Amino acid sequence: MTQYNITPVDKNIQKALQHKIDFKTKPQGSLGDLESIAASIGCIQNTLTPEVNSPTMVVFAGDHGIATTGLVSQYPQEVTAQMVLNFLHGGAAINAFCSQNNMDLKVVDAGVNFDFPENDQLIHAKIAKGTQNYYEVPAMNNEQLELALFKGRQIVATIHENGCNLIGFGEMGISNTSSAALIMSSILNIPVAACAGNGTGQNDAGMTKKITALESVQNTHGILNNPKEILATYGGFEIAMICGAMLEAATRKMVILVDGFIVTSALLIAQAIDKNILDYCLYAHASNEQGHQKMLTFLKATPILNLGLRLGEGTGAALALPIIRASVNFLNQMASFEEAGVSNKE
Amino acid sequence: MTQYNITPVDKNIQKALQHKIDFKTKPQGSLGDLESIAASIGCIQNTLTPEVNSPTMVVFAGDHGIATTGLVSQYPQEVTAQMVLNFLHGGAAINAFCSQNNMDLKVVDAGVNFDFPENDQLIHAKIAKGTQNYYEVPAMNNEQLELALFKGRQIVATIHENGCNLIGFGEMGISNTSSAALIMSSILNIPVAACAGNGTGQNDAGMTKKITALESVQNTHGILNNPKEILATYGGFEIAMICGAMLEAATRKMVILVDGFIVTSALLIAQAIDKNILDYCLYAHASNEQGHQKMLTFLKATPILNLGLRLGEGTGAALALPIIRASVNFLNQMASFEEAGVSNKE
Repeated sequence: MTQYNITPVDKNIQKALQHKIDFKTKPQGSLGDLESIAASIGCIQNTLTPEVNSPTMVVFAGDHGIATTGLVSQYPQEVTAQMVLNFLHGGAAINAFCSQNNMDLKVVDAGVNFDFPENDQLIHAKIAKGTQNYYEVPAMNNEQLELALFKGRQIVATIHENGCNLIGFGEMGISNTSSAALIMSSILNIPVAACAGNGTGQNDAGMTKKITALESVQNTHGILNNPKEILATYGGFEIAMICGAMLEAATRKMVILVDGFIVTSALLIAQAIDKNILDYCLYAHASNEQGHQKMLTFLKATPILNLGLRLGEGTGAALALPIIRASVNFLNQMASFEEAGVSNKE
Repeated sequence: MTQYNITPVDKNIQKALQHKIDFKTKPQGSLGDLESIAASIGCIQNTLTPEVNSPTMVVFAGDHGIATTGLVSQYPQEVTAQMVLNFLHGGAAINAFCSQNNMDLKVVDAGVNFDFPENDQLIHAKIAKGTQNYYEVPAMNNEQLELALFKGRQIVATIHENGCNLIGFGEMGISNTSSAALIMSSILNIPVAACAGNGTGQNDAGMTKKITALESVQNTHGILNNPKEILATYGGFEIAMICGAMLEAATRKMVILVDGFIVTSALLIAQAIDKNILDYCLYAHASNEQGHQKMLTFLKATPILNLGLRLGEGTGAALALPIIRASVNFLNQMASFEEAGVSNKE
């Protein structure tokens, strides 16, 4: 297995960070979760004056063989490509939120079943025109998996070298909640029925059909334990590329802002490859997709937002960015009791 | 009682707003709370293209006679004035968050026990140098109450006339969690022990002393039912001024972004004066102050953020502003399925 050389975060600075936080002109602990976020970023960057520089959202898109069966999704596969074009034309939710919050947005074709024209915002990293249908065979072979991981790493390396130190990942891929549920079921070792949600809006009959199909898929492939084998079997290319991207980001000591259900499934694989990655993660939101809350519990993660989102695209991460910025800003900008001449507790 | 002429929000546009929201390029309902926020603001402004213009945070500061007794707070009264100076010098949390989120910040001396020098950011509206000590007598008389309500209205009128259509209120006043708890106890008709929290950080002994004192205060003044009488009895000037400010904002059909425990206590009074005000309110966050969650339940309010904040100053409202902006932005900026050529559900 490739070594990722992720070093655990050095917590030696934690005490000094906590002291700085505690002597800001506010009652101790009164900024709640912002205080722990500030401390986390200070530890990751090993400084008392952490910064958020050129925060970037990378949305990976890929198609899934299973989508063509009609077993798991209500939307046709073409929607993946149509939504990528929507991203490139600025018409999607992630465009609005990145633009509002000054987050750079990049879109990656990780394996969409469509030939896109050249576009400055689009990174071409297509592994194939969609994964194989895991209802019958593994979604991808080992070469494809390694290539997807590698391309994810490369993309993050370039972004980091251009000055970004906080990165979020988003995804688009019709049927990819099914991949995420299958990955989750394998890593958490719980039934897939407890993992699958209604994705983009299945009704009860649709949910029953989806879960029956996913159970059948699990019977076909048997119990899988190796994280890379799980990823190769259930896909998709966008999830594999996010997994590689996350591992690279942690290697480079970047802050990883983890989005919802699909992106967290990539992290489930990544942390099975190297647990140290978790030191670099902040969790943007608790998705309305039922499995996501269980993933967060498994990861001992506290989500920043609870807005009932279930859109994907990285929207939760883009919406959480201002809270991250506020955490860093209070640490850098607020006066201490001493500086402000404010009396502390009697 | 003064008439405030708050008209209920016209909900005729709601259906058209929901249709616009539902045909954006996303699964229906997938933007969760942002969808209901967008619909609320659309209804308030009676438009399919709502806007957030010149959002403004007004922090009202006032002192409380009870603070000098040492019965309810661990911080000395001087901290109110010291923190106002900290606001004016840009060193407080609310400065950092307003600056980050492009929210105009105004500070009002509603009744601080200190003579402030002239400052462009400070609005002088002092009723007196602190309220009377309600352990013995009502915090203010009727003339003071009416003057505080009036000044709050005047301040909002000026801000609105300068182009602001979304307003948040913050507060600073040593001991004002006690006023808020007493107001809450009266309006919700529940024991004050179920309302009072540990404010800026009381320990168990401090909490027992605080609650005993507040129960004694209630015995002194008896059961109060008239909202203005409750407000005059328990104060403070900053809470009364926020109450008037909120009523004026609703009269002018502005969006009111409601902050935490103290500010919500002002709303409890305001809605007892005119229930229609609630049509204009959005709730920024659920405070870590125990009473606040009960206030939100009473108001049937869904808070936007859950970050364990208990600082006051309007910090929760300033932190929630980007979510409000995102709600308006997705409604105005996202493409519809038709515009983007994206296939809808099969």
